[in-house]
Amino acid sequence: MSLVSREIRLKSRPVGMPNAGNFELASVELPPPGPGEVQVRNLWMTVDPYMRGRMNDVKSYVPPFQVGEALQGGAVGEVVASNDPALKPGDLVSTMFGWREGFNAPAGAVQKLEPHGLPPQAFLGAAGMPGLTAYVGLIKVAALKEGDVVFVSGAAGAVGQIVCQIAKIKGHTVIGSAGGAEKAAYLKEIGVDHVIDYKAAPNLTEAVLKAAPDGIDVYFENVGGEHLEAALTAARPFARFALCGMISQYNATDGGAGVHGLMQAVGKQLRLEGFIVSSHFDMMPAFVKELAGWVASGKLTWRETVEHGIENAPNAFFKLFKGENLGKMLVKLS
Amino acid sequence: MSLVSREIRLKSRPVGMPNAGNFELASVELPPPGPGEVQVRNLWMTVDPYMRGRMNDVKSYVPPFQVGEALQGGAVGEVVASNDPALKPGDLVSTMFGWREGFNAPAGAVQKLEPHGLPPQAFLGAAGMPGLTAYVGLIKVAALKEGDVVFVSGAAGAVGQIVCQIAKIKGHTVIGSAGGAEKAAYLKEIGVDHVIDYKAAPNLTEAVLKAAPDGIDVYFENVGGEHLEAALTAARPFARFALCGMISQYNATDGGAGVHGLMQAVGKQLRLEGFIVSSHFDMMPAFVKELAGWVASGKLTWRETVEHGIENAPNAFFKLFKGENLGKMLVKLS
Repeated sequence: MSLVSREIRLKSRPVGMPNAGNFELASVELPPPGPGEVQVRNLWMTVDPYMRGRMNDVKSYVPPFQVGEALQGGAVGEVVASNDPALKPGDLVSTMFGWREGFNAPAGAVQKLEPHGLPPQAFLGAAGMPGLTAYVGLIKVAALKEGDVVFVSGAAGAVGQIVCQIAKIKGHTVIGSAGGAEKAAYLKEIGVDHVIDYKAAPNLTEAVLKAAPDGIDVYFENVGGEHLEAALTAARPFARFALCGMISQYNATDGGAGVHGLMQAVGKQLRLEGFIVSSHFDMMPAFVKELAGWVASGKLTWRETVEHGIENAPNAFFKLFKGENLGKMLVKLS
Repeated sequence: MSLVSREIRLKSRPVGMPNAGNFELASVELPPPGPGEVQVRNLWMTVDPYMRGRMNDVKSYVPPFQVGEALQGGAVGEVVASNDPALKPGDLVSTMFGWREGFNAPAGAVQKLEPHGLPPQAFLGAAGMPGLTAYVGLIKVAALKEGDVVFVSGAAGAVGQIVCQIAKIKGHTVIGSAGGAEKAAYLKEIGVDHVIDYKAAPNLTEAVLKAAPDGIDVYFENVGGEHLEAALTAARPFARFALCGMISQYNATDGGAGVHGLMQAVGKQLRLEGFIVSSHFDMMPAFVKELAGWVASGKLTWRETVEHGIENAPNAFFKLFKGENLGKMLVKLS
């Protein structure tokens, strides 16, 4: 028996905004798994903003993607054949072999998932890296403490929606910014106290200050640019900024917008700290358990935007940068 | 008996670079000190970059100076008359009644100094706020740890010169940047491993990377602008930036230069933290004791640039922004 898996390869490195010409669909034949290997059929894959950085040929915290090779990224799949006693057909696994329909891999390269009553794709979103990112950024990096007023940019995105809800569960006043009426309505639905539709706000800084006249204590940064300026101006003394991402700047070809308000970090004694979730994977088991409880008790929910089929994975990726995803952007593969 | 004290008042708020027209010299008569008061003759006063911010009418961590009133700032003086048993004529005191030749004040508003074998003006420099700023920024804010490579901007200034020497005493590789050959020579003299004369360096980022091919772990920020960009690019993962000041930006009338490289804080997981020394005054006694030991054993020295007479205090202040001070900028009053 052999299977054919379709996959998305990097055809050329994007300059600025990626487009269809930077990617190609290819097919590979999967032989039966070798000794110690498993064969996995992917059910879902994720597209994430950080992948844009890996498409550039620059040294970063993850090595760049190689032209002519399949892209990589998070995926959840089902074991279809196994030559390892720890895994059996039907097991749900999480891997970094996304951007393809299936694969063979050493059993050690896949991680068996305990479903905790959650749907499989949740492990690419609320119960996966985006959820842990929200948790780590808020609790550990920003060191959330009682009474903090929390400002979240990209609040209706994969990470932002979880940040908002964890902050609400912990009793905080939350200001969430997102682009467009649909996202704004969703944020109200999940209990965000002050929703800013930044596309409709003539002045973002004024909008934040109107929502928090005494200023903000925590800023969860997903967007950069004007959002960061607003947060710097609205920050109270000793505010903490968890720098998770700056999606507005990822396709910049001129080095990105300059941040003018950073001098305020001195006088207000602000702390700005960047982080990447893979440095905090040790917190995953505790987080997933806590999250499953919040989901079971109806305290936490999420939204997904789904594209269907591996051939549409690049489109799903493009939509991230156009802000066309509400909640987690996913590709359903089978 | 009464004395006349000359003082410098704010005549108008500077726009951009301050000039002589923003200040005026005035005289006030000092009556004998009232009950519970002391009369102090100032020996030295300090001018510091942070005072520029107080000349603007904006809310900050210290209230703005008022037009028509004497400026304030650090001063060291000698008690000439006292109606408080805790202070007697001849005592050396530290106060915030700078920018004037003498004053009367409640005894509680002056702080008696233990000389520790140091000259009086040291308490406005190495053994005062600038020294404590260096110590706090390096040890507490940047959390200096073994093996760190330290980059200091404004390295030949009041704070920078102490940062460099404390880092050297603690065994670190130090890169110091300053403007001009005289400052560069001084930095070599105090043991800075890699001296960058930024006025002579065609590309500051390349100069830092040449000095530290594997990157920097700590950046002590006094300057801002291009220096901050260089530090962001040269930073190793998990580097810590102690944001003490950004003197290159204090007179900007357009919001200051934009910082383009801040996105690197995410992928490299950098921590940028602003601080002001007055939040850390509790560390002063321990610091002064440690410093006095370093001075006594010849491990730490400093330079001063001195203007003479209260009438020249504004000039001393202007020189800070032109980079015309080597080490601590002081005004000798008597």
